[in-house]
This record gives sequence, C-alpha cells and structure tokens, in this order.
Amino acid sequence: MIEDKNQKKTALSDLGEFGLIEHLTAQFECSHPSTLKGVGDDAAVLDNLNKVTVVTTDLLIENVHFDLAYMPLKHLGYKAVVVNLSDVYAMNATPTQITVSIAVSNRFPLESLEELYAGIHLACRQYKVDMVGGDTTSSEKGLIISVTAIGEADKDEVVYRSGAKTTDLVVVSGDLGGAYLGLQILEREKQVFLVNPNNQPDLEPYAYLVQRQLKPEARQDIKLLLKQLDVKPTAMIDISDGLSSEIKHICKQSGLGAVLYENKIPIDPLVLTTSEEFQMHPLTAALNGGEDYELLFTIPVKDHDKIKGNPNLTVIGYMSDQHEQAFLHSKADELIPLTAQGWNAFG
Amino acid sequence: MIEDKNQKKTALSDLGEFGLIEHLTAQFECSHPSTLKGVGDDAAVLDNLNKVTVVTTDLLIENVHFDLAYMPLKHLGYKAVVVNLSDVYAMNATPTQITVSIAVSNRFPLESLEELYAGIHLACRQYKVDMVGGDTTSSEKGLIISVTAIGEADKDEVVYRSGAKTTDLVVVSGDLGGAYLGLQILEREKQVFLVNPNNQPDLEPYAYLVQRQLKPEARQDIKLLLKQLDVKPTAMIDISDGLSSEIKHICKQSGLGAVLYENKIPIDPLVLTTSEEFQMHPLTAALNGGEDYELLFTIPVKDHDKIKGNPNLTVIGYMSDQHEQAFLHSKADELIPLTAQGWNAFG
Repeated sequence: MIEDKNQKKTALSDLGEFGLIEHLTAQFECSHPSTLKGVGDDAAVLDNLNKVTVVTTDLLIENVHFDLAYMPLKHLGYKAVVVNLSDVYAMNATPTQITVSIAVSNRFPLESLEELYAGIHLACRQYKVDMVGGDTTSSEKGLIISVTAIGEADKDEVVYRSGAKTTDLVVVSGDLGGAYLGLQILEREKQVFLVNPNNQPDLEPYAYLVQRQLKPEARQDIKLLLKQLDVKPTAMIDISDGLSSEIKHICKQSGLGAVLYENKIPIDPLVLTTSEEFQMHPLTAALNGGEDYELLFTIPVKDHDKIKGNPNLTVIGYMSDQHEQAFLHSKADELIPLTAQGWNAFG
Repeated sequence: MIEDKNQKKTALSDLGEFGLIEHLTAQFECSHPSTLKGVGDDAAVLDNLNKVTVVTTDLLIENVHFDLAYMPLKHLGYKAVVVNLSDVYAMNATPTQITVSIAVSNRFPLESLEELYAGIHLACRQYKVDMVGGDTTSSEKGLIISVTAIGEADKDEVVYRSGAKTTDLVVVSGDLGGAYLGLQILEREKQVFLVNPNNQPDLEPYAYLVQRQLKPEARQDIKLLLKQLDVKPTAMIDISDGLSSEIKHICKQSGLGAVLYENKIPIDPLVLTTSEEFQMHPLTAALNGGEDYELLFTIPVKDHDKIKGNPNLTVIGYMSDQHEQAFLHSKADELIPLTAQGWNAFG
C-alpha cells in the first residue's frame, strides 16, 4: 500500500474549542421526538412523556482500554458508543441520546478526530440515537473518550440485575469468547509488526474474531425479540467483563446462586480452533474474556418453551438458592466455583 | 505543620474495580423521588413526571483544568460537580442527578480518591443531587474526571441561549474576575514554593479570590429569585469562559448584538486591588478570566423595575440588532469590540 505522506493535516489550535465542537458535530442531526435541544446550549434538553429515563456512562483511556496501533479511530468511535448502548439495552430500555466528551493531546490532527467522529456518527445512525452534547478539550497524554448514554422505557419494562428468582433459567444471546480471541490475534500481529514492519498480516481467516473486538454490536434486537416471544426477563446484564463476572453480579444483587453448564455455553467454532492455536482453553475466553456485549438474563422456567430453539438465545444454566455462589457444572460432572476475574484496570 | 509521613496508604489494586466503586459510593444516598435506581446496575433509572430532562457533561484533565499542587482533592471533587450543576442552572432547570467517572494512575492511593469523593459527596448534599452512576478505571497519566449532570424543569421554564430580543437588558449575578485572580495568586505561591519549600504562604488577605478559584459555588438561588421577582429570562448562560465569550454565545445564538458598559461590570474591591498588584487591568479578569460560574442572562426591558436594586443582580448592558456584534462601551465613551478569548485548551 502506497501512502501519501503529504496529506494536509490541520492543527487543532487552528480551530479553537468552540470551532472544533462546531466542526465535529455539524454532521449530527437530531431526530428523536424527545430531543428538544441538542448540542449548543449549556445542556441538552430532553422531553419525557411519562416514561422512565435510564442513564449510563463509560470512560475510555488510550492504552488502558484501546491501543491505536491496531484500533482504527473510526472503529474506536463506533465501539465507544456501542459499549454504552449495550448497558441501556441491558436495562431492557431503548437508547435515545448520547453525549460524547473527548480529550486529545496535540499529536492528534483534526483529521484523526474527524475519523473518530465518523465512527460515532455511524453508531448514532445504526442505533438511531441523537448526539446531544459533550465536551472537547486537550489531554497531557493520549486520547480519552467519555460517553454517556440516555435511554427510555415504560416503567414496567425496566429489568434490573436484582430480579432473578430461584429456578429461573439463565440465558445468553449470541456466542462468547470471540472478542477476547480477536484481541489476542491483534496483539500477536502487533508484535510481528514491531519486529518486521514490512510484514502484511493476513487477518482474513480470523475476520469474525477481529470484528468482535474492533467493531462490536450491541444487542438492540433482544428487547423486541423477547416482547414478541412474550417473555420478560427477571434480571439482565450485558457481558462486558466476561460471563463469570456478570453472572456473579446477578447472583449478588438477586441474593441467589447459579449453576452454569460447561457444555451449554455457546462458543463459535472459530473460537475453538483459535483457542487451540493459542494453547488456551476456549472456556477461559468465554468466562473471563469479556467485551462480547451479548446479553445475559434470567427468565422464569415456565417460559422455557417460548425461547427453546431460538437461534439467538441459549439456556446455559439456572439460578439456585445458594446465596451468591456461582458454579460451573463441568463436562466431567464437577461443580467448579466461578471466579470473577473480570477486568481489573488496577491489577 | 508536622506531617505524618507514615500514614497507611491502600493501593487501588487491593480493591479491584468493583470493590473500589462500592467503597467510594457507599456513602452516597439517593433521595430524589425521580431516582428509581442509582449506582449498581447497567444504568441508572430516572422517573420523569411530564417534565423535561436536561443533561450536561464536562471532562476535567489534570494539568489542563486543575493543578494538584494547589488544588486539594476534596475541593477538586466539589468543583467538578459544581461546574456541571452551573450548566443546569443556566438552563433555568434544577439539577437532580449526576454521574461521576474517574481515571487515575497508580500513583494515587485509595485515600486520595476518598478525599476526592468526600468533595463530590459534599457537593451532592449542598445542591441536593443524587449520584447515580459512573465508571472507575486507571489512566496512563494523571487524574481524569468526567461528570454528567441531569436536571429537570417544566417545559415552559427552560431558558436557551437563543431567546434574547433586541433592547433586552443584559444582567449578571454576583461579581466577576475573582476566580481568575485567585488562580494568579495560587500560581504565584506555587512558584515561591518551588524556590523555597519552607516558605509558608499567607493566603488570608486573598481568601475571597482563592475560594472563588478552589471552591466555586453555582448560583442555585437565581431560578427561585427570578420566580419570586416574576421575571423570566429570555436567554441565559453560565460564565465559565469569561464574560466576553459568554455574551458572544448569546449574541450568536440569538442572532443579535450587545453593548456592555465598562462602568457597570460588577467587580469586587479585592479584585481591583489585587489586579493592581499583578499590574493587570481588572477588566481583563472580568471579561476573559472565566470560572466565576455566575449567570449571565437577558430580560425584557419592561422588567427592569422588578430587579432594580437587587444586590444579587446587576444590569450591565443591552441587546442590540447589530448581528452578532458585541461591544464594550468604555468609560472613555468608546465602543470597543469584545473578543472572545475564552479558554482554548489547544492554544
């Protein structure tokens, strides 16, 4: 690939803060009836017709949450929005607005921020949310992104982590472990690149895994799907830190235990073969890998027939009355306590 | 002052992310009727009884927005909340909830974060807002704080920047320039300290200025005051970047010009004497200093009698039909164009 090294780059100081905000947000249009006022005042103003509002926020730091060596800025912008929307869907709510704040060091030209905002814009269109505000400033080091997502739901639709009941079935959407193995692939290619910069990586065989890591999607389909199936989850959470960590959250907040079956956990064939390549147990990726942004929820056992056979959903276990104790029922018929390795930024 | 250098410090890695969030947020209680669910789920859930919701967010970066050399962490936590609430008040709304995300490098022990959260907690009590969520992670360098504030108002109460009309009076609360001179004092003492660490600064004579910088308050009283006076502002903004920058925002969004009178701009006597000490024109601090968090608003000229003589409010000029042109009418009877130096993080 021949790169034009003389592409024009615009220094951020040429625009100033207000000019930069105007420039970056000019392409965003608000279309939600509830958005009375978006960017451009002291605060956004949202209308609310007797629904509940949900709000969630995430802070993403360069070299802690993402590595620009293999994360294109457009994907980063997309993912930064999606991970927040995933939290809104995990409340069984519908996201309606986001705010996006960024801090960047002087090493970023305007064109880089345009890429980032192109990804944010794409996510806004894909998930039909309005970008209604934010903040743009400089950092001493690296790129920092803070996204807050706001959503709405009818009061009786909202699903907390705390509502699971004993004997409820534990259900997960999609498959698990892909995003973590995608990260391993990208890390490996980065090391190869550092040794030999002329090496062109062939990521094609791992396309699914890399996409799960670089351009994850939030499960906006599940709320409608469950409504159509006439199933209301009793508890729900999104899988950002890994299945072990998330089921333990549901256990803790519902005051219950859980048993998950090893042989029921949905794992893509490519996760199996790639795990082997990395000499890693595929279950490690599924249980502790995180970033899959699938939904984990519990439903009454009476609703089993309604979801049985649905290709989007897998029953992986049940809630028990063993207070806060979550176990994996292994293929060898052993009960192994699940440990929430989760993701510890301070580890 | 004798300092105990052997105070026990707790490494953040001892707690892990979830432990840290639990520890730091344990003292926060939710009391707003609209807070259905605070910290501890994928998202907070807010009820909304036919009011509008306003939302605003700020991102604060160490050594860009604050200097821990003279900013105590408790004050920083307090100020990080207050600057966001100020934006809510500037919509003529009442803040109800905040989210707080922080990223810290490993150099911060738990006790530092406890100080920070003590300040956040104090602000929550002072302004009667609920802390309903956030994110806690690590940074590569320094402390990063992202606050999102949510507020509510009746639909007909909300005041935008865009509603000013020709001949409207321009009004400001409190006095201006103090926070900027407070910063100059603190910067000077820091330089003295760097040369001679044994020097004990005497900040007492500058107490008002230092307090304006380190522990600013948002004008939560103005909404009620104006209601009692039966005055509804036509446009409003808070003064975070300096009077020049803010009046130009109102001009631009209202499609009008403005004339401000130099001799009407409210400046505290201590700002006058301290400006002299720094060989600076006090007007520079008032016009371009920023961080005063007073409210700037416009009212119909017919309401002049209602606010006249109120010690909290000063009429400083009027809106003109000169499209987007803001002038200072100087003591020498000259019209000087106001330039929005504002605060350019990328300058």
